[in-house]
Amino acid sequence: MNGAESLVRTLHLNDIEICFTNPGTSEMHFMAALDRTNALRCILGLHENVVTGAADGFARMAEKPAATLLHLGPGLGNGLANLHNAKKARTSMVNIVGDHATYHLQYGAPLTADIEAIAQTMSHWVKTSCQSSDVALDGAEAVRRARTYPGHIATLILPADAAWGEGTEAIKATAPVEPASPSIDDVEVAARQLSNTGDRGALYLSGKVLTERGLILAGKIAVKTGAKLFAPNSNARIDRGAGRVPVERIPYVVDQGLDRLSQLNLVVSIGDAEPVAFFAYPNKPSRILPDKCSVQHICKENQNGLEALEMLCSALDARNEMPNFIDRRIDNGLPTGTLDQEKIAAIVSAIMPDNAIVVDESITSGRQLNWQTAGARPHSWLSICGGAIGDGPPLAVGAAVACKDRKVLALQADGSAMYTFQALWTQAREGLDVTTVIYANRAYAILKGEMKAVGVEKPGKVADDMFNLTRPSLDFVALARGMGVDGERVDDATHFAAALQRGFALSGPYLIEAVL
Amino acid sequence: MNGAESLVRTLHLNDIEICFTNPGTSEMHFMAALDRTNALRCILGLHENVVTGAADGFARMAEKPAATLLHLGPGLGNGLANLHNAKKARTSMVNIVGDHATYHLQYGAPLTADIEAIAQTMSHWVKTSCQSSDVALDGAEAVRRARTYPGHIATLILPADAAWGEGTEAIKATAPVEPASPSIDDVEVAARQLSNTGDRGALYLSGKVLTERGLILAGKIAVKTGAKLFAPNSNARIDRGAGRVPVERIPYVVDQGLDRLSQLNLVVSIGDAEPVAFFAYPNKPSRILPDKCSVQHICKENQNGLEALEMLCSALDARNEMPNFIDRRIDNGLPTGTLDQEKIAAIVSAIMPDNAIVVDESITSGRQLNWQTAGARPHSWLSICGGAIGDGPPLAVGAAVACKDRKVLALQADGSAMYTFQALWTQAREGLDVTTVIYANRAYAILKGEMKAVGVEKPGKVADDMFNLTRPSLDFVALARGMGVDGERVDDATHFAAALQRGFALSGPYLIEAVL
Repeated sequence: MNGAESLVRTLHLNDIEICFTNPGTSEMHFMAALDRTNALRCILGLHENVVTGAADGFARMAEKPAATLLHLGPGLGNGLANLHNAKKARTSMVNIVGDHATYHLQYGAPLTADIEAIAQTMSHWVKTSCQSSDVALDGAEAVRRARTYPGHIATLILPADAAWGEGTEAIKATAPVEPASPSIDDVEVAARQLSNTGDRGALYLSGKVLTERGLILAGKIAVKTGAKLFAPNSNARIDRGAGRVPVERIPYVVDQGLDRLSQLNLVVSIGDAEPVAFFAYPNKPSRILPDKCSVQHICKENQNGLEALEMLCSALDARNEMPNFIDRRIDNGLPTGTLDQEKIAAIVSAIMPDNAIVVDESITSGRQLNWQTAGARPHSWLSICGGAIGDGPPLAVGAAVACKDRKVLALQADGSAMYTFQALWTQAREGLDVTTVIYANRAYAILKGEMKAVGVEKPGKVADDMFNLTRPSLDFVALARGMGVDGERVDDATHFAAALQRGFALSGPYLIEAVL
Repeated sequence: MNGAESLVRTLHLNDIEICFTNPGTSEMHFMAALDRTNALRCILGLHENVVTGAADGFARMAEKPAATLLHLGPGLGNGLANLHNAKKARTSMVNIVGDHATYHLQYGAPLTADIEAIAQTMSHWVKTSCQSSDVALDGAEAVRRARTYPGHIATLILPADAAWGEGTEAIKATAPVEPASPSIDDVEVAARQLSNTGDRGALYLSGKVLTERGLILAGKIAVKTGAKLFAPNSNARIDRGAGRVPVERIPYVVDQGLDRLSQLNLVVSIGDAEPVAFFAYPNKPSRILPDKCSVQHICKENQNGLEALEMLCSALDARNEMPNFIDRRIDNGLPTGTLDQEKIAAIVSAIMPDNAIVVDESITSGRQLNWQTAGARPHSWLSICGGAIGDGPPLAVGAAVACKDRKVLALQADGSAMYTFQALWTQAREGLDVTTVIYANRAYAILKGEMKAVGVEKPGKVADDMFNLTRPSLDFVALARGMGVDGERVDDATHFAAALQRGFALSGPYLIEAVL
């Protein structure tokens, strides 16, 4: 068995099911091993940022890592932006990056690059497996590292000669490092403080606690103490909708964030230390909590957030409280007339099927979605966590691969869609149940607001030209058809609702270009 | 004047004319400065790999650097693959990468990344300009560094507060380091050896000497000594066609390269040390010169190749020799019938207009192009130099921006085209005179050969699925129309010739999907 096969078998032995890839010559032995073993399902992306983003979406929903297989430094480089998003989402991922044979590197052939240096920028763990006899062991360690709580990016570089040289049997990974328990002293201090602050107190929840179980615990604490529940604006996954405990995402716009948090005297933080502004702006703070507000950070990123909530619940004697679950929103008919962002949000909320997965890269166009969908049917909400646009279409691929029985709704800004639109081809090839709504406002609309926020009142001709996606306008229906995905363009609310219903009725991909 | 404006003015003062960009919030002051000064032409790409690839194409043809403006670590990451290609092409480029305000970095906001580390992987020079008062000076230094012979990648990171803080007047860059002269002793040794080896000797030419002037000098040496002229398979730019001195590009396929070079006893190398295999393969050498062949490397990458050729010409007393210029190819009618690669090559050769720029990312489909076009009308030939696919469409953008009076023909493999197909939108917006031919073989065809080359005789089902771009087939005409570029699909040689003539007759972009 060669090194490549020992790696494929090791990944399989360690519960890696899926390999998202765009392979090249240096990965041919890995491909051959996939063929011999049939041990992993292999899914092709037409660009590596589709590959890494899909692996992110898969892990967020499957709660276990996928593998990626990438082609040397440039292949890894192409996938770097969505690795950045995955890292910020605390996603677990195993990247296998092929390299030249070790003896070939000295010749500086065209594809030669410092892969370790590229990988280090977006990985928690990087290793080059130089000996074919070490590949299985290194592969097992990569999986173990990826499983570090709450989720790490592990990158294993596989030189061609380590792939084709003699390998070993598959190796079972040792158990990942368990997340540390929060300090009971910190929890008790936080409990005493929360008891005294009422609605001037809040839990700031991020990471793995935003699933149903964590939010129920948080909801009990909220009822017992009066504390509010906040989360970052962007999260790997929030389980939300009717019958769930709602948590308020802090607005992206700094002034709105400052306003929402202005009454707080105490934040008990589980995960991220404290809310901060997405960007710095002249004469605005980076921290968005008021100065008077104290922060009790009872659970760091590498500590068990659910355990922290359990402990806090016990310390507050809140275990038997009944959380305030959100009611199902009642709609008195759907909006009609010319389409706008708010009507889209209302229609999405009304029509979204039970247990949908919403991938939200709607940027400015989706600012009404959050409150409009709070009482929609239960669903999971996935955001772009690292601000690197072009995460949405690949995340939808990965989520759909992970959850065959759930509908995926991708709410997608047009400018960002163009970053990784190739993902639609993978949706078509794999028959993935994804309905994509393109918010076609023909602009990087966010930049218009940002220019003002940094102090420029009115963009001039150059800036205006860079912000508008006109001259020519993009035809997303043609682009989707070019990749084998059917779709339609709508500019009216009634037609949008009908289109969305058509999308959900299909079991494969569909695209709606919603003209704004 | 703020730091951003002092940078824009400094770039302009130092002969930077064009800024290819996809900006974000941290670049808003730079955008505003562009508006106030109107000092640079600003061209939008819908993805950063379009931006960096276009800057590469521009510099190859304009023989001076363009600037790019990129958005933090992920924006730079997105452009990394074509920076890799540009670095291997020895292209001169100035990247400006916005970053968070310096004081904001400590908060770990979503877009925070180690930009310097990312930049180091593909740049010769990297600096963060932390003080607004230093920005002009650092900008001038970036241009100077980019101009290092034969061409360097210089990356200047501009934190938002350095952009909006008080800057200085524009600063003129000091002169770049001059390329070192080759050693006369080395040249004289090489001259003596070449005089004695006849056609068992060769010049191995790479980099800046492959333009018309260098090739004329090389042609004189060849006539005087009998030496052959070889170049790498991929080059930043070769000036070739009827009336030019032909140089043979060493084949990509190792066995073919070994065969072509097997008779050589001496290689005099100017630029790259010696030809090497693109990849390593089991039981095949990395070096493709025969063991008996000695290599005289008279001019390193940072030395003046044209000067080396002049010196060699003088040492051989070859200045008055008349090189063997290639004759204009005579075609007895164009091929007809079902389209194939060879017919495309013949038709391209016959129809290509005078002084065209050919951007070649045809990969396997273009292997007949080299010899078929040797006697076409004079043209410049640009290749993908670092093996990172997706360079072609952006290179065509940059070349067309640099040379308004020349037709650009982009010969493009289908799988690679999907990496940076967004470039077509920029071609449409800027009205660029680019005709793109997609070789639609519906496959990563190269991988079929590569799998065999690494020792796997027959791909299995998994590998076959990863190599074929079917299920569904891509519709490139629809994709192009989606981005505002008109086109047509052809599968017949007569129709292909007509389509190519239509493309050349236009002054804007056109796409031909050539079904193979």
